[in-house]
Amino acid sequence: MRITTVGLDADDTLWHNETIFRLTQDRFRALMADVASPEALDARLAEVERRNLDLYGYGVKGFTLSLIETAMAFTGGEPPGRMIADILAAGREMLAYPVEPLPGVDLALAELSQSYRLVLITKGDLLHQEQKLAASGLGDLFAAVEIVSEKDASTYTRVFARHGTGAEEAVMCGNSVRSDILPALKAGACAALVPYPLTWAHEMADPPVDHPRFAELASITDLRAWVRWLSR
Amino acid sequence: MRITTVGLDADDTLWHNETIFRLTQDRFRALMADVASPEALDARLAEVERRNLDLYGYGVKGFTLSLIETAMAFTGGEPPGRMIADILAAGREMLAYPVEPLPGVDLALAELSQSYRLVLITKGDLLHQEQKLAASGLGDLFAAVEIVSEKDASTYTRVFARHGTGAEEAVMCGNSVRSDILPALKAGACAALVPYPLTWAHEMADPPVDHPRFAELASITDLRAWVRWLSR
Repeated sequence: MRITTVGLDADDTLWHNETIFRLTQDRFRALMADVASPEALDARLAEVERRNLDLYGYGVKGFTLSLIETAMAFTGGEPPGRMIADILAAGREMLAYPVEPLPGVDLALAELSQSYRLVLITKGDLLHQEQKLAASGLGDLFAAVEIVSEKDASTYTRVFARHGTGAEEAVMCGNSVRSDILPALKAGACAALVPYPLTWAHEMADPPVDHPRFAELASITDLRAWVRWLSR
Repeated sequence: MRITTVGLDADDTLWHNETIFRLTQDRFRALMADVASPEALDARLAEVERRNLDLYGYGVKGFTLSLIETAMAFTGGEPPGRMIADILAAGREMLAYPVEPLPGVDLALAELSQSYRLVLITKGDLLHQEQKLAASGLGDLFAAVEIVSEKDASTYTRVFARHGTGAEEAVMCGNSVRSDILPALKAGACAALVPYPLTWAHEMADPPVDHPRFAELASITDLRAWVRWLSR
């Protein structure tokens, strides 16, 4: 098999993301402790986020708006001002959170970029993702960056056609079975799952363990060896 | 001069946008009438938006967060719940606002697309801009769509290199001197200003009336004639 292009997810593949959302959610739980149990709060927030997804899409700004909406629901529509101020501050801090590549990412990408065209493929707020990439110091390793509103099979077909030699000669690597693995396989690419310890409920799905073009890797450090093996 | 590619701004060039922001701002003034004069409210909102621009970027979600922050400022940090609920609803309605091409846009683009490669180049929320393009029914007329976080000269250089034959053989058309005209001219493209009756304060700038590659057009309907004249 000929492989020319490697697509990489960003959040929770190259740097922490879900951890930052969870930290904010912990803070939200503490903020709301007087009016909601953690379980009830989490369930309601998940429901609000799901309902808002079509309108807000992915990213911190929509999440912040969903936090405010959830706070409204548990305070009879009259949240104390301090609650709103704290949620706004939490959203702002998420956007300004320092970005550091996960262990091994720098080296793995530097090596891969010698032999393959690297394409960053990520969802989220356009500006925030660009800012995170710039802050990560990884930007120069990528031949192209595609920030997309949804990751489905047609997204991968389009991106790998535009920036590579088609999905059939591409590998996608990411931490989400639902967004990075299943649609990339459907588009005809190979796909490597590098799990992150936390997964957002919305992204949960079973890995396609028997698929011939799929592999689960312990670390992104193993990606180059697998891509080479595919190209054997 | 050879022209192969025509870039088009979206908001307030192809469809109404600022009008919808102004309607929301009117609603916000009414909502805040008991606590703030319209002038003081507008001034504070403009200041909050400007301060948040680096973090939030352009678009409705960041605007909604800025409205909430402004409401906090005029209520001693204790806005009534109804105020927050109304702001959240206003943001949601902006995102769901029906999109209709401005008069003459359909025909002008249909004609232009016969002879030139059309590229949509716009700022704003990624998902929302995609949704507006889909709702407008104009999507098929564009060879490419670029939703960008900032419109500077390097943006136009990159986009016209990727989707055309370089900025020197491209025309950019939009309603903002600051975002559509000056940086496109700097990149080496021609630029046509089609003014919209309203301009966001942040986008205000004087048109470069003496620039040889610039024209101000009364309507997008005149764009094809000007592009043809350039290609003479």
